[in-house]
Amino acid sequence: MHDIRQRIATRNLCVGKRLPSIRVQAEGLGMSRSTVVEAYARLAALGIIESRPGSGFYVGRQLSPFQMAEAPSGYRPATDPVWVTRQALLADADSLKPGCGWLPDSWMPEQEIRRALRTLSRKALAPLTAYGTPQGSPPLRQLLAHRLGERNLHVSAEQLMLTESSTQAVDLLCRLLLQPGDTVLVDDPCYFSFQAMLRAHRAHVVSVPYTPQGPDVKAMAECLATHRPRLYITNAALHNPTGASLSLDVAHKVLMLASQHDLTIIEDDVFADFEHYRTPRYAALDGLQRVVYVGSFSKTLSASVRVGHIATRADWIEQLVDLKLAIAFESGHFSADLLHTMLGSGTYQRHMNSLRARLADAMGLCLERLQRLGIEAWHRPDAGMFVWCQLPGGLDATALSEYALAQHQMLLAPGNSFSPSQQATGFLRFNVAQSLSPAVFEALDQSMQAL
Amino acid sequence: MHDIRQRIATRNLCVGKRLPSIRVQAEGLGMSRSTVVEAYARLAALGIIESRPGSGFYVGRQLSPFQMAEAPSGYRPATDPVWVTRQALLADADSLKPGCGWLPDSWMPEQEIRRALRTLSRKALAPLTAYGTPQGSPPLRQLLAHRLGERNLHVSAEQLMLTESSTQAVDLLCRLLLQPGDTVLVDDPCYFSFQAMLRAHRAHVVSVPYTPQGPDVKAMAECLATHRPRLYITNAALHNPTGASLSLDVAHKVLMLASQHDLTIIEDDVFADFEHYRTPRYAALDGLQRVVYVGSFSKTLSASVRVGHIATRADWIEQLVDLKLAIAFESGHFSADLLHTMLGSGTYQRHMNSLRARLADAMGLCLERLQRLGIEAWHRPDAGMFVWCQLPGGLDATALSEYALAQHQMLLAPGNSFSPSQQATGFLRFNVAQSLSPAVFEALDQSMQAL
Repeated sequence: MHDIRQRIATRNLCVGKRLPSIRVQAEGLGMSRSTVVEAYARLAALGIIESRPGSGFYVGRQLSPFQMAEAPSGYRPATDPVWVTRQALLADADSLKPGCGWLPDSWMPEQEIRRALRTLSRKALAPLTAYGTPQGSPPLRQLLAHRLGERNLHVSAEQLMLTESSTQAVDLLCRLLLQPGDTVLVDDPCYFSFQAMLRAHRAHVVSVPYTPQGPDVKAMAECLATHRPRLYITNAALHNPTGASLSLDVAHKVLMLASQHDLTIIEDDVFADFEHYRTPRYAALDGLQRVVYVGSFSKTLSASVRVGHIATRADWIEQLVDLKLAIAFESGHFSADLLHTMLGSGTYQRHMNSLRARLADAMGLCLERLQRLGIEAWHRPDAGMFVWCQLPGGLDATALSEYALAQHQMLLAPGNSFSPSQQATGFLRFNVAQSLSPAVFEALDQSMQAL
Repeated sequence: MHDIRQRIATRNLCVGKRLPSIRVQAEGLGMSRSTVVEAYARLAALGIIESRPGSGFYVGRQLSPFQMAEAPSGYRPATDPVWVTRQALLADADSLKPGCGWLPDSWMPEQEIRRALRTLSRKALAPLTAYGTPQGSPPLRQLLAHRLGERNLHVSAEQLMLTESSTQAVDLLCRLLLQPGDTVLVDDPCYFSFQAMLRAHRAHVVSVPYTPQGPDVKAMAECLATHRPRLYITNAALHNPTGASLSLDVAHKVLMLASQHDLTIIEDDVFADFEHYRTPRYAALDGLQRVVYVGSFSKTLSASVRVGHIATRADWIEQLVDLKLAIAFESGHFSADLLHTMLGSGTYQRHMNSLRARLADAMGLCLERLQRLGIEAWHRPDAGMFVWCQLPGGLDATALSEYALAQHQMLLAPGNSFSPSQQATGFLRFNVAQSLSPAVFEALDQSMQAL
């Protein structure tokens, strides 16, 4: 099994290629056929190879190379972050997708973006054609530093670096701080893309259960002592997928543990602007000594406005800039100027006021309809777009998701795609903005009955 | 030395931090002081730490973390790709920079980009706010597949994936295909950012001398047999920095060697549109079996139009998309739509006609002025922006560059920043579009006299 997985991982056996027959493989490796049969069967169960009756065994098409390294038993696409993301991105504009992680296009400030584009088209040459400064547009960094100050994160513009997105920001940090085999701590459940990313970094993932006030501190203390992770990657406000926000005492205790165990925390605050009132941030308490703060505007403004930011110690900013120059050269600052225009003109603030109100209505509606089907929220979020809820009667959310996609072309987000320990079998994450149509609940009801 | 380098690499000792005194270090490690003195002296010579007289030793500020792994003896910023790039990006619009790697802002098609922006601002919603499809804008991929077909690269749109830039494309390919410690072959000299990137990937770099017809085939055969590199990363047309283009027989021989040694070739064709007439491409001969073809429009159109592309086997495209989804999520397709508009309207073609003519004039002028100073071109390029030339009288180009920056604030690109073997001590790469002002040659002349 290891031999075959290695050859797949090094691309000597490519996806879709036919494996040697059992007989040939056994002879070639000097093993008994039954050993090879067992190996092929287990690899097929893992989804790494596929059996095509009458034809033989082929390298499986659906796995990313990085899953080869650590394929969990019983691979099911519905819980694979990469597979789910692909489906969500390829789905029709009209298809039902309460499982997807972003707001509908119609909620985005289209007119305002058009206006900002026209403004940009009338500006001076440099913004349009030049490479930006390595750390990113100085005026935008100044503006962002000011905004962060209003959240009690007191940083200078020099402590900020702009990136394409918060995902790219976290990935850059992983490249800077991690070696293959390092241990990283995440929440259980957590944003599923963190898991896919950490697999790409060949990190060893451990997790801590999440509570409505933040991570389970007792469990975290044990985990840190046992596993000594290098990093903890998390959200503070409006946690993805649970919607929970950090309480002040949990934040404080976690930082004490971090200090005790020399743990670096990456706090991805991509949902910050969805809050109605401010809740604690690790970075605000810590002052960026061991917390790295990441954010972006792709959830609130537009996926097309490619600006993320990292706030951290000045010496790490310098190293991040060097790394960025080595691997990505430089991003144009088109998007940065667009964002600066929209932030500076008050456009963004007006948009957010409207968005928060709209989401609050959608949240209320969604919770009510879920309740009618016997689906209870684990925690009623204060804001944001996600609800984490449990199916009644021990229903399996993965099976439900597979059924709903096949029968109704409806994309759900089953709990186990978010849970490293796979202990969220009965849970679903709902995007309240994508759950407005009654058709969603009709399809959900029918699917639940069918199971 | 290893202990200190490890602590720096794991960020326990950060840039600017003071090292323990020699006495404390010796006691702590159970070593003699003279051993520690020797270690500190060697680390200082490598530039990893700095001695501040009367104050002690400090972790050096200028090195990226990835140079820690393999710092060459006698580190000099002027030959460090990351350092040179930083300087170039931060330089004033007016400062002299014949060493920089891009065209002046004034050569970019500003009006046409404005116009395309206004067109974009009037279009339908989706281009403005949505996430793109994972592989990138289907209409743009169709258009690019068509353009590549005109260059004898027959690919389907399905074999293309869009990225932010060709640099990001090469980096993604390295993440897919390389493990730390793998050997990678580059040209000597080569695009210096390849070296910085490969250091970030912890790859072992070997190199093959370049000739005016392409790589030295005999040397390559020996290198492949000895080092068995996993990848060869190169340009075919208008090689950076030499400006040489591949001859058909060299292309053929290299592909035979690649086949013999199971070598994958990444061909970065970022200067394709600068050619007046077509020269051979590895990808055109090979049909994308073991050649991966990469391109972008940032050199010809604008650094702000963030579109690169990868053309390769369909099964590798699938794996690249999975990888991209895991680490970068998705790029908005703003830039893709802008590019599509400009390609479709004929704007780009008109711009390139004008650009090629302008560059040909600049090339002639530059070569003539260099000759007057006794600086000879190693090869007279057929097109493009670069000239690779040798200083007379055994002058050291690195020393000249350091002098020119200090005295004239003029940024030069010394040969050893491009040469992995550091055997280009007397060479410089000139960007003919950045060498139009007589001030460049006055400063160069004065600097040469001073040395």
